[in-house]
Order: sequence, then C-alpha cells, then structure tokens
Amino acid sequence: MMKLTGENKERLNFYIDIIEKKLASYNNFDEENFPQKNLADAMNYSLSAGGKRVRPVLMLEFCRLCGGDFQKALSPAAAMEMIHTFSLIHDDLPCMDDDDFRRGKPSCHKKFGEAIALLAGDALENLAFEVIADCELPDRVKINLIRELSNAVGINGMIGGQVIDIENEGKGISEDLLYKMHSCKTGALIKAACRMGCIAADADGKKLLNAGAFAEKIGLAFQIIDDILNVAGDEKVLGKPVGSDIKHGKTTFVTIYGLEKSMQMAETLTNEAISILKEFDENEFIVDFTKNLLLRKK
Amino acid sequence: MMKLTGENKERLNFYIDIIEKKLASYNNFDEENFPQKNLADAMNYSLSAGGKRVRPVLMLEFCRLCGGDFQKALSPAAAMEMIHTFSLIHDDLPCMDDDDFRRGKPSCHKKFGEAIALLAGDALENLAFEVIADCELPDRVKINLIRELSNAVGINGMIGGQVIDIENEGKGISEDLLYKMHSCKTGALIKAACRMGCIAADADGKKLLNAGAFAEKIGLAFQIIDDILNVAGDEKVLGKPVGSDIKHGKTTFVTIYGLEKSMQMAETLTNEAISILKEFDENEFIVDFTKNLLLRKK
Repeated sequence: MMKLTGENKERLNFYIDIIEKKLASYNNFDEENFPQKNLADAMNYSLSAGGKRVRPVLMLEFCRLCGGDFQKALSPAAAMEMIHTFSLIHDDLPCMDDDDFRRGKPSCHKKFGEAIALLAGDALENLAFEVIADCELPDRVKINLIRELSNAVGINGMIGGQVIDIENEGKGISEDLLYKMHSCKTGALIKAACRMGCIAADADGKKLLNAGAFAEKIGLAFQIIDDILNVAGDEKVLGKPVGSDIKHGKTTFVTIYGLEKSMQMAETLTNEAISILKEFDENEFIVDFTKNLLLRKK
Repeated sequence: MMKLTGENKERLNFYIDIIEKKLASYNNFDEENFPQKNLADAMNYSLSAGGKRVRPVLMLEFCRLCGGDFQKALSPAAAMEMIHTFSLIHDDLPCMDDDDFRRGKPSCHKKFGEAIALLAGDALENLAFEVIADCELPDRVKINLIRELSNAVGINGMIGGQVIDIENEGKGISEDLLYKMHSCKTGALIKAACRMGCIAADADGKKLLNAGAFAEKIGLAFQIIDDILNVAGDEKVLGKPVGSDIKHGKTTFVTIYGLEKSMQMAETLTNEAISILKEFDENEFIVDFTKNLLLRKK
C-alpha cells in the first residue's frame, strides 16, 4: 500500500517480511491428529491475512531509531500484531460489527464459525503475552513491555475505546468523546507500538516521550483517514464494503467535520508528527513512512 | 460450600476474604461520567459473583507451603481468578454454551448484552497480565508467573481444551480424547494455580513438580465431580440447570463410566493427591481442603 521508493521501500519490505515470517513461526503444531488444529488454523488464517503491519513496523523502527537492535524487538512486534488481530476477529463477530469480510477474505467467523473465531481471538490475546515472556530480552525490559502493552489494550485503551464506540452507536456524540474514543480505540495501541520499540532498545525517558507524542499525532491522523476511506474509499482496493460506518449510524470525523476539513486535519497532524521526528537521527525512513500513511488507499 | 472446621475453616474464609477484597480493589474508576463504566460494571459483576475461588486459594496456600509470604501471591491469585472469570463469561455466550445463568444470577451477556460481555472477557484476560506485571515481586518471578499462566491459558491449555470440547459436541469421543480435553480445559489452570504459588515463593524444582502432580490429580477429580453434579446435582444448590451436558450431547466421565464408577475414580484421585501432599510440611489445611473438594455440592 505504501508508495515508498528506494532504500525506504526496501526497508519497509524487509521489516514486513521478517514480521510475517515471525508470525508464521508460531503456527508450529506438527502433532498428528492435533485436536486443536482448527484453532491453530483460525489463528494463522487471521494472522497471515496481510494488513499493513503498521504497528509492528513502527515498533521495529523506533527500536532502531533509539540505537537498539531491531531484531530484538521482533517478538514484541509479533505480539503487538497478535493483539491487533485478536481485536479485528472479535470486532467482526455478529454481536459486534457483524462484518462478513476482512481484507478481501471471509472474516474469521465466516470461515471457521463463531465459537472458533471467539476462541482464536482469546488465544491470540494470550499468546501475545506468552511471546513477550518467552523472548530474549532482560526480564526488566520484558515486564516494561508487558506493562505498556496491557495498559494499551485494557479498559483505558483499545477495549475501553470499543466500548465507547458500541455504546454510542446511532447516537450523536460530542467532539470530546469522539477524540477520547479514538485515542483509546486505535491511538493507544499505536502509541504502545512506538513506545515499546524504544523500551526494547532500553531508551531514555525523553525518547519515550517523543515517540509517544509522535504516535498520538499519527494515531489520530490514521483514524481520520480510516473514516475518510470508509466513506470515499474504493471497495476493490479496501477489500471490504464502503459505508459501514453510515450503516451503523456512527459519528466519525467525516460526519462532524466533512471530508475536506477531515483531510486537512490529517495533513496537519502528519506535519506535526514529522516535526517531532527531528528529535531522532537517521529519520529518513520514518519520515517517509509517516508521509505515506496519509496517502494510503486502504 | 466447604465443610472445613476450626482453624482450617478460618484459613479458608480468610483466604477467600482477602482474594475478594483484592478483586474488588481493581474496580476503582471514580471519574465522573466515565464512558467505559458499563465495561467496568460487567467485569466487576462477573468477578464478584462468588464462586469457590478454588484456584486462587490453591495459589496462596502453595505459596505458604513453600515457605513464601502468601500476601505476595495475592496479585497473581487475583490474576488467576480474572482468567477463570473471563473463560466463564465467554463460555456462557450464545455462540458457545448459551447459558442464561451463572451462579444463580443472569450470565454476563444476559445482564449487559453480548458485545459488552465479549469485551468484559477480553478486558479481564488482559488485566490478568497487567496485574502480574504491576505486582511487587522481582521481575524474574513475574516473568515466570506470566509464562506459567499464559502457557496454561493458550492453545495447549484451557482454550485448546474448549476447542476440543466444542468440536466434539454431540459426537462420541474416545477415553483418551476425553482425558486430554479435561487436562487442557480445566486441568491446566488448576495446575498453573498450584505451581504459581510455588513460583511466587521462589520454591525449588522438586516442590514445583510435586505441586504439579498434586494438581493433575485434583484437576481430574474436580472435573469428574463437575460431570457428576451436572447429572445428579441439586439445581437450587448449583444455581444453574442440571442436565446441560446431556442437552448438548456431551461425552462426560458419567456417560463413559456411569455415576458410581465416576465417584470411585474421583475418590481414588483425591487419595493419590493427598498422598503427594506428604512432601509438604504443615499440610493440615491443604489435606482437609482437598478432601472437601470431593464432598462439594456445587
């Protein structure tokens, strides 16, 4: 999806490649007649379904930007993608958004049934913590990573944001609540991704603060663009029906500000995010990556 | 539910009291107009719904038996109960067992709706790891606890066992698979509870092995008794309808061995478990507790 070129494109492709190989490596159940095979298949089906891998790429890159070995952030990056994938599986369930398609393929419950999809989400959520606990970083760093991740997932993060979303479906919500919802629902995990990259590199507090401030800007920009694409995107490119927000009566940045103003807001946020990146050396890739998030078509 | 007397009864009541106070302490959202309030309420509703607290009691007691300060195992014990509660909430959902009642009260989704119940389960699963990461034990111990817990929850533990259960509903399953299903579905978490108590006390490998062997015996006995109560229990005491296993066409120890032989098996397993406890000093409470698991009516 990204229009990066040259070395930046190579770096992005390299990151995505090692992330996807890492994710595939957990599907290693070679027992004959493994009775939980369907669960492993469902987990792998959703984990390997592509997606932009934005969060794990951010984690690897912030680890590198802080002078760390990004290979050491690979397990936490996989854990982050497991959390993101679990949230998508549960989000698609009939009692939630009831989406039949995800990334151009049948959603997990359409393919494996609701019960297995529910449990595949549960298992991925758990596996994320198992993977961090088992990785090769000092225990102190692993605990900091788990603390950062769990805090971003819970009642004051992603899951809390989903609750605000669900409970206000079909109602007009205030601007304040819209911002709070998105800072929880999508912002918290993106912020955790950037910060966890710094933590894996054992970076100082100033780097963590800058990474967090950068993430807040792009997290919001990312969500605004999501809202725009949900109205004005191309179904064939997105791989899912356009207009589901309207169908569910959701308040979005587009319903509050309109398309044009929303696009301007995303651009301003992206510029602000890029200016924060001046605090990091060798920032060519992340600057390019950030610019291209704005141009994405899915 | 337990018929303990004297000091043992006092100890059990004390353990349950501090566990329930600890669980209640996480429901500390005092923000005005907290928009995720419904989620916090649903989590607390299910967490505070009583139950036998068998797993956290085992954890505290094994910590004490290994010479540890059981107060230090209190956060991990609360985490364990969060995992157990999350599994009950998701188990009761319409796409799973579709149970309207749990412990004599409406199940979480009957009270809060399916979407909130799903997310309350997700949030409790996450909170378990957050609570361990935040507790006051050395990082090395915390990582060992998280490794033990996540391993017991995942594809080769509780969730894997639920998959075996679901996929074989209405089919006759082999004895082997029945044992495997239960050692995953309920056994893994009970084993983790006992072992995590030892880990919190920084106990040696021999104590961990004995705690694990003990747990395997009582885990199986506990499940056999569950199967017996599902057929022969008293609805008023159980707080849920009797016969749901038969309704769902499940293979259970009772359908394979009959009521009498099942009861004998539970008794033999309990005696074997008690003999393992000779490896621990000051075992009066845990011996009494184990005997009484066999006598439970719910």
